[in-house]
Amino acid sequence: MIDVKQLTRDFNLIREKSPLVHNITNFVVMNNTANGLLAIGASPVMAHAVEEMEDMIAIASALVINMGTLSKRWVEAMLLAGKAAKERKIPVIFDPVGAGATPYRSETASIIIKECKPDIIRGNASEIMSLVKSDTITKGVDSAAKSESALEMGKELALQIGAVVSISGQEDFITDGKNVNTVKNGSLMMPKVTGLGCTASSITGAFAAVNRDMLAAASHAMAVMGVAGELAAQKSDGPGSLQVHFLDTLFNLTEDILIKKLRQ
Amino acid sequence: MIDVKQLTRDFNLIREKSPLVHNITNFVVMNNTANGLLAIGASPVMAHAVEEMEDMIAIASALVINMGTLSKRWVEAMLLAGKAAKERKIPVIFDPVGAGATPYRSETASIIIKECKPDIIRGNASEIMSLVKSDTITKGVDSAAKSESALEMGKELALQIGAVVSISGQEDFITDGKNVNTVKNGSLMMPKVTGLGCTASSITGAFAAVNRDMLAAASHAMAVMGVAGELAAQKSDGPGSLQVHFLDTLFNLTEDILIKKLRQ
Amino acid sequence: MIDVKQLTRDFNLIREKSPLVHNITNFVVMNNTANGLLAIGASPVMAHAVEEMEDMIAIASALVINMGTLSKRWVEAMLLAGKAAKERKIPVIFDPVGAGATPYRSETASIIIKECKPDIIRGNASEIMSLVKSDTITKGVDSAAKSESALEMGKELALQIGAVVSISGQEDFITDGKNVNTVKNGSLMMPKVTGLGCTASSITGAFAAVNRDMLAAASHAMAVMGVAGELAAQKSDGPGSLQVHFLDTLFNLTEDILIKKLRQ
Repeated sequence: MIDVKQLTRDFNLIREKSPLVHNITNFVVMNNTANGLLAIGASPVMAHAVEEMEDMIAIASALVINMGTLSKRWVEAMLLAGKAAKERKIPVIFDPVGAGATPYRSETASIIIKECKPDIIRGNASEIMSLVKSDTITKGVDSAAKSESALEMGKELALQIGAVVSISGQEDFITDGKNVNTVKNGSLMMPKVTGLGCTASSITGAFAAVNRDMLAAASHAMAVMGVAGELAAQKSDGPGSLQVHFLDTLFNLTEDILIKKLRQ
Repeated sequence: MIDVKQLTRDFNLIREKSPLVHNITNFVVMNNTANGLLAIGASPVMAHAVEEMEDMIAIASALVINMGTLSKRWVEAMLLAGKAAKERKIPVIFDPVGAGATPYRSETASIIIKECKPDIIRGNASEIMSLVKSDTITKGVDSAAKSESALEMGKELALQIGAVVSISGQEDFITDGKNVNTVKNGSLMMPKVTGLGCTASSITGAFAAVNRDMLAAASHAMAVMGVAGELAAQKSDGPGSLQVHFLDTLFNLTEDILIKKLRQ
Repeated sequence: MIDVKQLTRDFNLIREKSPLVHNITNFVVMNNTANGLLAIGASPVMAHAVEEMEDMIAIASALVINMGTLSKRWVEAMLLAGKAAKERKIPVIFDPVGAGATPYRSETASIIIKECKPDIIRGNASEIMSLVKSDTITKGVDSAAKSESALEMGKELALQIGAVVSISGQEDFITDGKNVNTVKNGSLMMPKVTGLGCTASSITGAFAAVNRDMLAAASHAMAVMGVAGELAAQKSDGPGSLQVHFLDTLFNLTEDILIKKLRQ
């Protein structure tokens, strides 16, 4: 169960502190992700040069690793940044985009989990399932399974690696292996906008930067994403306007709206 | 002449089957292209690591190669993916962005055509002309010529390499060297939005995934692009809102609207 | 003081000549930057392959180097392009994104300034200050300082390296070390949209392509950015719609609106 007081406290803390969230993410979503972080009040930085990974981590409050458009040099940067973040005790969020779609993605996800020990893994059902059961089929980067079906595996994964697992879908499930939080907000139109899942991962980074309770942080992020997405979808004629309204809604979100609209 | 029944059948098939379209495309348009594919009902994936090219092709229904922001490693990935696609008999669409602007682009386009044997080449007039006549001047990535002037060369190219050539412009011409289909829809505001041509190439990939008649597939894609762009432009105050309305319109497009609005 | 007649002349010249502006810029903003250039009437090209730098410069009217998401190979391309541009006497605009955030960024900025001798440097206050005083702290890519506080250092930098320095902020200051132009337009919502600063740098490239007086060109660009941003913000509910309205406003901007709305 999400504690609404903690949620609104964290929400306000992000706007107040404007934590720097370092993203090593994919080419498709960089713009939206940066805009999502700005809209909620955080400060985004996108950087991937191995030459500056440690230095960027030194000024960041959270690291988000997203493997959407991975390649060798970028994976090197991810590993460098992940290790530096662990040393500095900065929370690491990992988004295993497309895990299960190709062996390279699954192997890379394994290596990142092993070497960077992420605090939170956020993905869709297929991705999460593929991290536990290597024969799960992921269709490119879209989920071929429902979030419910991934919950048990998500719990298993959480216990196995000691991380919080955040599974997005029609209902979002966030678990540390024992406890499960649920967010029932959102809209069926959200998966029609590319990268809202990636934005969720980055927003998770912003919450993890202000709350060391990773189950709470990951849940608060999904609550904000779900409420903002749902309200934005109500005003939208399609995915083009949803993208625009999502940023506007996130920017104008208040404690009161959050409390009133959250369904869990 | 476009067969409207076939067009609507393919249009519905994309929504029904949601074919996975693998894009190796440029940094400028990745987001829009992915959103365009989602809006029409296809499933986009953007991936460029040589380590996963064959595996991604193995689950894809079409491959789109776009050389907008090319570099050595990306060209390697394009060639690997293109050959794998031919082996698996998956349609290959090639968008020779900026061919003619620099020798590197023209040479790369040549190599891709020779080694990947694309089923469809989609480009603007300057790009298509430069593939036939190496002294054509392309102004960066924008066309310096009208589509009419490229039609004869497009036919020549189609016969030479055995591909369908799709030339976008105020009127779109799609030819296999013998037959020519024309799409007269669209808006003069469309070239003011970056990457709508690239989106056309990816949408062509979606149609090629559901119809093995490449002349039909390429023509259907331009029909949908033209109608959606024209309707979206009517609601738009400028290129910013056109981008938004284009995705909304594509998402809400119906058979009836397509039939009613198509001008050929 | 900006000469309004020169401003409107340059503004019209861009639409008339549609100068090709070559951008080596970051992954986050490529789409918006290209759209910004199209909206004002220029012709954007984004290219970074070392194999085509000289050839692309040979057909370009301005070069914009932006180090937002830099890496080794990209810096090589920047240096190649910068040198080629100087040889061909094409104006070079440099946007030192995140200078001061990491040593790698500060060093890269130094090298680019030394080897490419930019005609105009456009950045936020923190970035400009860090180029003069190496112990300035930049918070990722956002400014931690006000533009006023950077003005004196901007003048110093301008004299030191013989370039025009354009400092964006709530008020924009553009200086050649002796003269200072000020633009008081804009909106507090603009920094909530990622990459409007980068768009300003590219628009600066478009003006530099049509006016060899670099102080005037840089000032005209900030005038147009400020007026368009201010008008767009008045219609916007948040940063999502601001991005959309900004492009529409820029596209529909007229001489009369520019003259009427400019505050300096």
